[in-house]
Amino acid sequence: MKLDLLNKHQDALNSAIKALHERTFFAHYPENPSPEIYGENADKDGREKYKSYLNEKFSELLQQDPEQWVGQEESPFEQQPLNIKYPYFAPETLVSRAEEAYHQWRKVKPADRAAILVESLERMKERFFEIAYATMHTTGQAYMMSFQASGPHAADRALEAVAAGFEEQTRFPETAEWEKPMGKYNLKLNKTWKAVPKGVALVIGCSTFPTWNTVPGMYASLVTGNPVIVKPHPKAVLPIAIVVAEVQKVLKENGLNPNICQLAVDADDHLITKELAENPKVKLIDYTGGTEFGNYVESLPGKTTFTEKTGVNSIIIDSVEDMDKVAQNLAFSVSLYSGQMCTAPQNFFIPEGGVKTAAGDTISFDEVVKKISDAVSGLVNNPKAGPHILGAIQNPATTERVKDASSIKGKEVLSTCELANPMFANARTCTPVIYEVDATEKESYSRELFGPIMLVIKTKDTNQSIELAKEMAMNYGAISCGAYTTNPEIKEKIMDEMGLAGTPVSFNLTGGIFVNQNASFSDFHVTGGNPAGNASFTNPEFVIKRFTWVGFREPVAG
Amino acid sequence: MKLDLLNKHQDALNSAIKALHERTFFAHYPENPSPEIYGENADKDGREKYKSYLNEKFSELLQQDPEQWVGQEESPFEQQPLNIKYPYFAPETLVSRAEEAYHQWRKVKPADRAAILVESLERMKERFFEIAYATMHTTGQAYMMSFQASGPHAADRALEAVAAGFEEQTRFPETAEWEKPMGKYNLKLNKTWKAVPKGVALVIGCSTFPTWNTVPGMYASLVTGNPVIVKPHPKAVLPIAIVVAEVQKVLKENGLNPNICQLAVDADDHLITKELAENPKVKLIDYTGGTEFGNYVESLPGKTTFTEKTGVNSIIIDSVEDMDKVAQNLAFSVSLYSGQMCTAPQNFFIPEGGVKTAAGDTISFDEVVKKISDAVSGLVNNPKAGPHILGAIQNPATTERVKDASSIKGKEVLSTCELANPMFANARTCTPVIYEVDATEKESYSRELFGPIMLVIKTKDTNQSIELAKEMAMNYGAISCGAYTTNPEIKEKIMDEMGLAGTPVSFNLTGGIFVNQNASFSDFHVTGGNPAGNASFTNPEFVIKRFTWVGFREPVAG
Repeated sequence: MKLDLLNKHQDALNSAIKALHERTFFAHYPENPSPEIYGENADKDGREKYKSYLNEKFSELLQQDPEQWVGQEESPFEQQPLNIKYPYFAPETLVSRAEEAYHQWRKVKPADRAAILVESLERMKERFFEIAYATMHTTGQAYMMSFQASGPHAADRALEAVAAGFEEQTRFPETAEWEKPMGKYNLKLNKTWKAVPKGVALVIGCSTFPTWNTVPGMYASLVTGNPVIVKPHPKAVLPIAIVVAEVQKVLKENGLNPNICQLAVDADDHLITKELAENPKVKLIDYTGGTEFGNYVESLPGKTTFTEKTGVNSIIIDSVEDMDKVAQNLAFSVSLYSGQMCTAPQNFFIPEGGVKTAAGDTISFDEVVKKISDAVSGLVNNPKAGPHILGAIQNPATTERVKDASSIKGKEVLSTCELANPMFANARTCTPVIYEVDATEKESYSRELFGPIMLVIKTKDTNQSIELAKEMAMNYGAISCGAYTTNPEIKEKIMDEMGLAGTPVSFNLTGGIFVNQNASFSDFHVTGGNPAGNASFTNPEFVIKRFTWVGFREPVAG
Repeated sequence: MKLDLLNKHQDALNSAIKALHERTFFAHYPENPSPEIYGENADKDGREKYKSYLNEKFSELLQQDPEQWVGQEESPFEQQPLNIKYPYFAPETLVSRAEEAYHQWRKVKPADRAAILVESLERMKERFFEIAYATMHTTGQAYMMSFQASGPHAADRALEAVAAGFEEQTRFPETAEWEKPMGKYNLKLNKTWKAVPKGVALVIGCSTFPTWNTVPGMYASLVTGNPVIVKPHPKAVLPIAIVVAEVQKVLKENGLNPNICQLAVDADDHLITKELAENPKVKLIDYTGGTEFGNYVESLPGKTTFTEKTGVNSIIIDSVEDMDKVAQNLAFSVSLYSGQMCTAPQNFFIPEGGVKTAAGDTISFDEVVKKISDAVSGLVNNPKAGPHILGAIQNPATTERVKDASSIKGKEVLSTCELANPMFANARTCTPVIYEVDATEKESYSRELFGPIMLVIKTKDTNQSIELAKEMAMNYGAISCGAYTTNPEIKEKIMDEMGLAGTPVSFNLTGGIFVNQNASFSDFHVTGGNPAGNASFTNPEFVIKRFTWVGFREPVAG
């Protein structure tokens, strides 16, 4: 172990722990991809590095003796295969190697584990630009989001998990002398406590946020002493493969088994997730993805699971300062990465009597809908904004869902179309579609419609809007909620009701901050309090369920 | 709300939180039932108060309009019914009253909830002696254990849960101003966070420790804002009924709904636990009892559960300082409350080659067994000790199990008999039975044999002893483990292996401290790391799973 790593990263760890408890703004990794911060050639070098992976074997991993080479990634911007090949290992090989590595990693002290992991994040930082291009061409995210979400934001979420895990493992003393007065004498015991890691961990990634949604669970399990098998979505491997490779290198440099963190890529002809998840040696599972598979993961006996599934996110519009600004803000939220975000809003509850403004006017329901629809059209059709906000559609099934909304009983307010991308002639795109639906048509809006699909739901009044938003969150899950009201009592009611549904609420957002965005070290992402998932980045529960406190005691020799 | 309660109890709360993190000796409630501490007449008054309940309706609860009056308690010391009648309410009545009370209790601040709960423990303290007699005559515990376990030790465990719950709810700020530099301007958000309680909580008690095993979950759910329904074992109601009554009185005095904490007694002709547990409004369940029902509780969908089920506790004897002292200590552990403790040892692994002593001798296997057997006989037959250590047998099924050990393939080393109790001629008793079993007869020792049953298991060597103790703990659960070794390497190995099995280990106990005993504020009780249960008194997980962190944010008006 190169012990200087701890000195090198102690300040970063301490700052991160402090930030977790202050919850004011904190970022260890700069989100701005500017040459001043990352170097003059960082972007160009990253792009070239990305290109060098294409049509080649990805050979950076330190996992030995692959059975075959596999890969099925495809760029949503170019609609052609990346043709990168990754080493394939049978699930039983991965698990037995993890089990072997476990007995080395669990004996490394939490502080040293944390230092090694922070070092790996610093190495990841050096590769933010290639990770950005890898993310673009697997997920369809536009450049800026690819850089920020997969690079600095993901690294900050990972640092958050490392900090929380380190803090929780050091919250109780390693040793104490326990002395109980018994009257004529004292009973004295030496006590020690160990945070014993649970065992082999599996992290199942998703296709849209291959690092952001993977690194929290991965680093949380690692810092608490568990070996990790990272199983990315077969369509989004490269971004996280780069991260895993960096972790393996740092482990090796410190005399540790690189199999403490393994990459597990699906075979081209069969998926390996279930076989991994059901292996009795696998004790911890982090999962991001659809509800059906998430429920399966949660139901597996003998496992501790952390899930982020789907949700039905609501916007409640009661009263506003300035409806135009609200419409602009919401149009951006719906359009950002074409709604392919777990935090994207879907159901917009608007009272049939319209929306009051600060000026004392009432804007009719139809006018509110028109303002939002116009704002979406304006944004999408602005060539300097539209393509850079929408990006491309990751999965062709999403395009189908947007184009064929026949299952929605309502009136089409804005129809979808393809959007020319100035850089990628073959980009898979579709602009947001808007439907107006009556509150009585619950079937139409009581499920997640992943992608740029916006439902404007006409309610009797704001009380019904709140009731429905709460019901959706409690029954089908929710990860975000936006609300607009100038009435303090209604604000209080929304906080109370949505709080009971375990759903965070952003009030009266306008300008440059959006309901989709969750900040590391401040916003808990997914609360764990509704069916959208039982994980939360990063509350204490997200880390302490990964280890067991075990105590030992012995009389003081006397 | 009488706000002075917070001032009154702030010091106690702070001391308790500090103790949780120091884990040195701490007790807020004195365990010695001496007149100097509790008053000259405390014992006599308590005994008389206990007697006044017999053959009457228990009328202290503030729950309105019972449907009927029920009760089926019986004294193991007198083998006759107590004939105390408790109010009965249908499960749906209990749940709907809890749901109503929830919306009041959740709005009380965590600090005020904590103060109210500490006040209730202070009131409980005034009633420790009547609770002691109630415990004796429901569980069969002897007087001293009844006093300590159901009184001060239980109250300290409850205080521990209150302190941990209060601390966890205040670990993140209520509000923060988040200000993100965006280059030309700053984004500013006001943020607030709420610890939202999960909802109606159910606490299912056991027959042997009616307050000690109930109050941790009960107070943990209450301090985190959840209304609680306490469902005691039908044979052990009175001790916890007194505690619930005190909580209700303090709630009412503070202007709160007494149904925040309700007692739910089974009907005489049917049990109501499953109906309560399966009610969709019930979100949290604490359970102490048998494994089968515990597994059922853990399997209920949509609930957060905390269980303490059964385990197979081991003693590993490798080498000793003084075998006679070890035998004395183990004899006490096996005899205490006739082995009716979740921490009582059952499987004693001893190498066939015997046990080395500090003097360099080796005591043969047979001699070790004889020393332990003689120590048990000596203790049990000492009229000044035996009856006061063994107490009585709570459940006639336990007596049957001890008398008919035909399922154990082994040699009877010490047979059981009844033991005359000087105070209670009709006490239900049986002295410990000892069987010698070979390590190959795994079926005989791979399940909990509740009661005073001791299996001496002959192993090849200490390595096999460790392997078997670990296997038992991992497969069937374990709550305690005792080990005797003078070899530091073997000690390290036992810590490592039993740590992986989530089992705390007491090393080389002799004299006045026993493997059965777990100290509040220092020893985590049940680690949650093996099939013996997923609860742990009181680690952070025991409280934070009872609420959800939900955040709210809004741009700073500017």
